[in-house]
Amino acid sequence: MRALTIIFAGPGIMRADIIVSGCAVLTMGRAGIIERGIIAIRDGKILYVGGESEAPSFESDEIIDGRGKIAMPGLINCHTHIAMTLFRGVAEDKELSTWLRETIWPLESKLKPSDVYYGALLGFVEMIKSGTTCLLDMYFYEDIVARAAEESGMRCVLAPGIFDAGHKMLGSILLRRALKFVKKYHGKGSGRIHAMLGPHAVYTCSPDLLRMIGEEAARLNIGVHIHLAESESESINIRRIYGKSEVELLDEVGLLRPNLVAAHCIHLSNHDVSLMAKKGVKVVYNPISNMKLSSGIPRVKDLLDAGLTVGLGTDGPASNNCLDMFETMKVAALLQKALYRDPRVLPAKKVVEMATIDGARVLGLDHFIGSIEVGKRADIILIDVNKPHLTPLHDIYAALVYSARGSDVDTVIIDGKVVMRGRLIETVDEHEVMRKATETSQSLLSRKSLRGSLIKRLLRRNKDIGD
Amino acid sequence: MRALTIIFAGPGIMRADIIVSGCAVLTMGRAGIIERGIIAIRDGKILYVGGESEAPSFESDEIIDGRGKIAMPGLINCHTHIAMTLFRGVAEDKELSTWLRETIWPLESKLKPSDVYYGALLGFVEMIKSGTTCLLDMYFYEDIVARAAEESGMRCVLAPGIFDAGHKMLGSILLRRALKFVKKYHGKGSGRIHAMLGPHAVYTCSPDLLRMIGEEAARLNIGVHIHLAESESESINIRRIYGKSEVELLDEVGLLRPNLVAAHCIHLSNHDVSLMAKKGVKVVYNPISNMKLSSGIPRVKDLLDAGLTVGLGTDGPASNNCLDMFETMKVAALLQKALYRDPRVLPAKKVVEMATIDGARVLGLDHFIGSIEVGKRADIILIDVNKPHLTPLHDIYAALVYSARGSDVDTVIIDGKVVMRGRLIETVDEHEVMRKATETSQSLLSRKSLRGSLIKRLLRRNKDIGD
Repeated sequence: MRALTIIFAGPGIMRADIIVSGCAVLTMGRAGIIERGIIAIRDGKILYVGGESEAPSFESDEIIDGRGKIAMPGLINCHTHIAMTLFRGVAEDKELSTWLRETIWPLESKLKPSDVYYGALLGFVEMIKSGTTCLLDMYFYEDIVARAAEESGMRCVLAPGIFDAGHKMLGSILLRRALKFVKKYHGKGSGRIHAMLGPHAVYTCSPDLLRMIGEEAARLNIGVHIHLAESESESINIRRIYGKSEVELLDEVGLLRPNLVAAHCIHLSNHDVSLMAKKGVKVVYNPISNMKLSSGIPRVKDLLDAGLTVGLGTDGPASNNCLDMFETMKVAALLQKALYRDPRVLPAKKVVEMATIDGARVLGLDHFIGSIEVGKRADIILIDVNKPHLTPLHDIYAALVYSARGSDVDTVIIDGKVVMRGRLIETVDEHEVMRKATETSQSLLSRKSLRGSLIKRLLRRNKDIGD
Repeated sequence: MRALTIIFAGPGIMRADIIVSGCAVLTMGRAGIIERGIIAIRDGKILYVGGESEAPSFESDEIIDGRGKIAMPGLINCHTHIAMTLFRGVAEDKELSTWLRETIWPLESKLKPSDVYYGALLGFVEMIKSGTTCLLDMYFYEDIVARAAEESGMRCVLAPGIFDAGHKMLGSILLRRALKFVKKYHGKGSGRIHAMLGPHAVYTCSPDLLRMIGEEAARLNIGVHIHLAESESESINIRRIYGKSEVELLDEVGLLRPNLVAAHCIHLSNHDVSLMAKKGVKVVYNPISNMKLSSGIPRVKDLLDAGLTVGLGTDGPASNNCLDMFETMKVAALLQKALYRDPRVLPAKKVVEMATIDGARVLGLDHFIGSIEVGKRADIILIDVNKPHLTPLHDIYAALVYSARGSDVDTVIIDGKVVMRGRLIETVDEHEVMRKATETSQSLLSRKSLRGSLIKRLLRRNKDIGD
């Protein structure tokens, strides 16, 4: 709905770019839930949020009618490999090492930058349509992902994958490349693109490489994203090789700091948990991927009890197989209740926090996003609650976690810009994206192996990141 | 889309009521997947299913354009308490006995038949919108549920709850009432309404009552639906009181037969499993409810390996909190992979079987529904696969289990009648149903306790079931 001007009662008139009115507002901030609220947005920021009756007067060219809807902060997906949308359904119900060796790695070895572009765009479209407004991605060709993010309007933290896997030179080259990426992209896309360094895992990075990464991240004041204690056999291997746990090793190389975002965190000792809590490490819980790959179940209640901040992630769409954070919220709660044999564990409100403000804390962006509060960037989604599965609506948090689905998201605003309205994406042509992504995936599957290894091609490809 | 006549190449012309054309057909029968198929429906039955190119000629007043869609058998929800939609969100994240004692039982004690009517209608609307075409329900006032089923077009197996809870007379009166229900409703609604007897559980029914129920079910050739080994503490209690397991007790009273549909089956010994398999008992796996209530995790792989037939259920919407069988399929697979620490356990195709043909076997209706095959009743759903989360589409079974959601269901046909088209329900006014259900739920919550206990009122209320 567009209108020339709307004026609410109150002294003076303020100009806003967008006004959302008449909805319940789940602020995830100090104001809690506002039953009938109004949100005013200007210059990408939240100018005002409060009850409609006590609001000052606003005028705006764009009024979004929020009646029958819940406004809440956009969901934050703290761990994914977005371009793996292309691999959705290509190898299912397989044992992990078979899945990696026979399908994923051979496919990744054939991956071109243009594949990543369409894979990422497809992922962003899916994310927007299910209410995600920010993600932390770790993958190859993150410069290409940044381009797709700029076009789709998505907010991203991008962590180019770094590893050496026994080749020292490779690690330092990938780190150098990542540092150039950070320099070029951090803060770009009108502030929507952020960068981190992405050491893949303890078992694929040498302690020297990890140490260098930690030093560079501290120097640049950026985050570090890593897979931690996901695979039990790798965790055992690390202890066999180094005589210490993955967490202890990270501590030794100086990575165990508040800017470390550790995905999975399944196979941890109590000592690991205390150490992580003491150092303020951030955790990402990926319940669906952990179940689908049978990686084990993280003890999230213990992590929270220890004082750790935990966000939620879908992980890559090849091990999920989708990017719907509403589904992830529900399974996140269910899995912990099943693990602890206690239905009180991980109540709905905490889960919504994990998907919003705690996710923002994990990314180091809680001053910026994660709640609907004055001064924060306007990343807001509107949920249409006029649905049978959301009826009756007695408990908003429970409705969002246990009953709502991504398809209930009606409108998505990122950085003060409407990117989806009435379930139609406004930034890119979603049908064209689906068509190109399908073509790309088919071409990738039928493609012969490219000349040279992925590593060689990764090293050859310089121009897009400013070499 | 409606058209006067369509004629496909081939000798002769057959008249059909509905033709679905141009879709992939997942028959779940011997024909497997038909890539570009046609389904012809006449008199509520499947007249033809096959490849479009080799199909005989049909004429029909109603052509449904299935291009870009997958046709599959409607999903079968083998365990729910449908009217509990009214309790959705009223008490969340509570310990089970607190949840029952402080919320559910007090609310149920205030329940009127008209409440059940709107609760059931709301549930049917939600089910149709997420692709369920048949359910097994156990609750109070099943005659009222039958009325809602007739109006909504849903196919139902209805099992009036029977229990004595220490009051012998109560059990025999409820059984008599249930037998009258069976006589009046079994086979009604143009064959869409079926009946079973519904002894609530071993811990709420005396062995004498269970024995009587078994004898009556055998005499009438109908099924028996029961909660089995859901609560660990109740299972332990039963062993303490009777010196045997729940399963052994059911065997002793003659209920362990192929017509027994046992929901949950979590706390079973290996001996219990063998005994159930030997007797051909049917099992319903309710993964979401089991997780949400922290009941424990059924060992479904072991049940299947023992040769048991297992269907899927959502359980009541107050312990889920929705009725989306697509979600249940995904969580069903994920939970077993997590339990057995093996991603190969419960592969996607088996899960789709559990939600369709195996569900029909559980209900004793596999001659009738559960697959798209000539002669079976036409319970068919069309999934719109032109969605980002279903792109690319490499593996239909995996897409349906791991990526699809109830909201991808475009069209629902039950018993040869279109009940939803383009996501709009055609049988009832869904917005009016939501409005009335919300009113009903609010009235129920604010209502003072009714005069007399639920039991007394259940016994008083005779006219609707023909006393």
